[in-house]
Amino acid sequence: MAPETGYVVGADIGGTSLRLALAGLDGKVLAKWKVSTAGIRDPRVVVRLIHEGVEELLKENFLSRGLLRAVAAGAPGVTDVDAGVVIATSYLMGWRDVPLRSMLEAALGVPAGIENDVNTAAIAESKIGAAQGMRDFVFLAVGTGIGAGIVLNGRLFHGMNWSAGEIGYLLVPGTSVKPVESGEPGALESIVGGEGIKAQWQSLWDKDRTQLPKDLVATQIFDHALAGDAIAQEVLHKSAQTLAYAIYNMAVVLNCPLFVMGGSVGMHPALWESTQAMLAQRDKRVQPKLLRSILGPDAQVNGAIHLAIETASTRVI
Amino acid sequence: MAPETGYVVGADIGGTSLRLALAGLDGKVLAKWKVSTAGIRDPRVVVRLIHEGVEELLKENFLSRGLLRAVAAGAPGVTDVDAGVVIATSYLMGWRDVPLRSMLEAALGVPAGIENDVNTAAIAESKIGAAQGMRDFVFLAVGTGIGAGIVLNGRLFHGMNWSAGEIGYLLVPGTSVKPVESGEPGALESIVGGEGIKAQWQSLWDKDRTQLPKDLVATQIFDHALAGDAIAQEVLHKSAQTLAYAIYNMAVVLNCPLFVMGGSVGMHPALWESTQAMLAQRDKRVQPKLLRSILGPDAQVNGAIHLAIETASTRVI
Repeated sequence: MAPETGYVVGADIGGTSLRLALAGLDGKVLAKWKVSTAGIRDPRVVVRLIHEGVEELLKENFLSRGLLRAVAAGAPGVTDVDAGVVIATSYLMGWRDVPLRSMLEAALGVPAGIENDVNTAAIAESKIGAAQGMRDFVFLAVGTGIGAGIVLNGRLFHGMNWSAGEIGYLLVPGTSVKPVESGEPGALESIVGGEGIKAQWQSLWDKDRTQLPKDLVATQIFDHALAGDAIAQEVLHKSAQTLAYAIYNMAVVLNCPLFVMGGSVGMHPALWESTQAMLAQRDKRVQPKLLRSILGPDAQVNGAIHLAIETASTRVI
Repeated sequence: MAPETGYVVGADIGGTSLRLALAGLDGKVLAKWKVSTAGIRDPRVVVRLIHEGVEELLKENFLSRGLLRAVAAGAPGVTDVDAGVVIATSYLMGWRDVPLRSMLEAALGVPAGIENDVNTAAIAESKIGAAQGMRDFVFLAVGTGIGAGIVLNGRLFHGMNWSAGEIGYLLVPGTSVKPVESGEPGALESIVGGEGIKAQWQSLWDKDRTQLPKDLVATQIFDHALAGDAIAQEVLHKSAQTLAYAIYNMAVVLNCPLFVMGGSVGMHPALWESTQAMLAQRDKRVQPKLLRSILGPDAQVNGAIHLAIETASTRVI
């Protein structure tokens, strides 16, 4: 068996589901696997689920265990890529200093790589998505919260303590300037993240102004904004304006020409279009391009595949 | 003569003066030279002045012309380091696409390097100043306007079009959100830059509230803030708060642990202390260190010396 044959598995560890994909060393996806992670917080359980998924993917594709070269996982938190440790995730998972890489290597017996999940998505957009060939770009993941994967000079930029791109805490015109306690959403996040959008809707909701229910999620609110609901449009306007300020600021500091919007909320055409319109109103000298993710919910797992392929050729256990 | 012997000259091209320094290949400064550039805009005149200064420095130090290995200059504008072209300076100089590197090489007959002047200051702070040994830091130059030199992974980060760090345009809580026309000061600059500080003072000035003259410059206003003038303190408070928001945002995006304040206004202890106090009020998870430049007005020319030394060993004409 030549050393260039074999397979890898990429994993995306999310708060609601764990997604796996089996791929060849060329990055071509052969099969996918998914399981709910609702209510699961213990990293040992997550690793056991990844182990089960890997075995199932190999078995279903009639591949022997020895053909697995490496795995890689995107984790929803600040991740020390060098040490292989997830330093912290949001309160939803509550991880602190989880040695995920060694746990995966012990369970699977192959080299493992780990990375922040927004960064794996950025890798995927850079390799096969909306940012192909771009030396500098920022991937914006807008879901429950908001985070950024920053690629500079063709490489992920991690920062001093692996938390570059934690942009939920940015302060722009219109955000609160109150210091944020640990575990609280940041100033930007509380306007642009899914939970923040929901909260805005609920605080503006008025039964005399809308016939819509008070309990809607961000993407539904944006759907209703497109359909003409005035309160929903107000929420969309505020979110898009605030996001546009944040993008503009990053474009100024980094002189960055491209931003790619992903995540369930970030992929919504209403947010993308409104944010783009707000950016177009700003000064001509700072006009970054704003694209929607091509890979959508597959971005994270695809990036993990690319990281696994790299891991296969660089890491020995 | 061994190839490791020789001398370089570093130049700092400013709106009010041109500073030169002669140094050995070890970076040790042997002599300085300075001339006024008030009223001088033509880049050919600036190059002629640099030429004169270089000849004078060599002559005064009894060095033969053949011992000059390279020169480098920091220019007050967006600079394409690879092409050797100053793309644009502020309206004060009005340069557009000036091929400064080839002009210097033609005049002096030695390899030349050019760089944005805030970036040369950042180089100097990194080599012999307040940021020694720091992989990631931001140098903040606050003079008439405001600019940043960004060092990431131990190297200057320039951005797509050589304008990373043009932070005068940042939008933070309390700044104007009006789009900025070409040539106008940016939103941040009009509050934190020297001209903006002066303008704030003049708009708040009231003969019933202060006995100070209406016509003061930024550093004088800060002196009077320290001495207890209420209006001056108001101006200082607003400038420091706004600068603190901008620093906080850059620290969030880049996960950057150190900011170094330089420039005539940025070196003022009142601005440094107040900004530091504002930063300390923000959330604990984002607490970058804020230092004052060690090199002060010599930072730019010292950085140019380091660039010239690098140029001597990498560039052939």
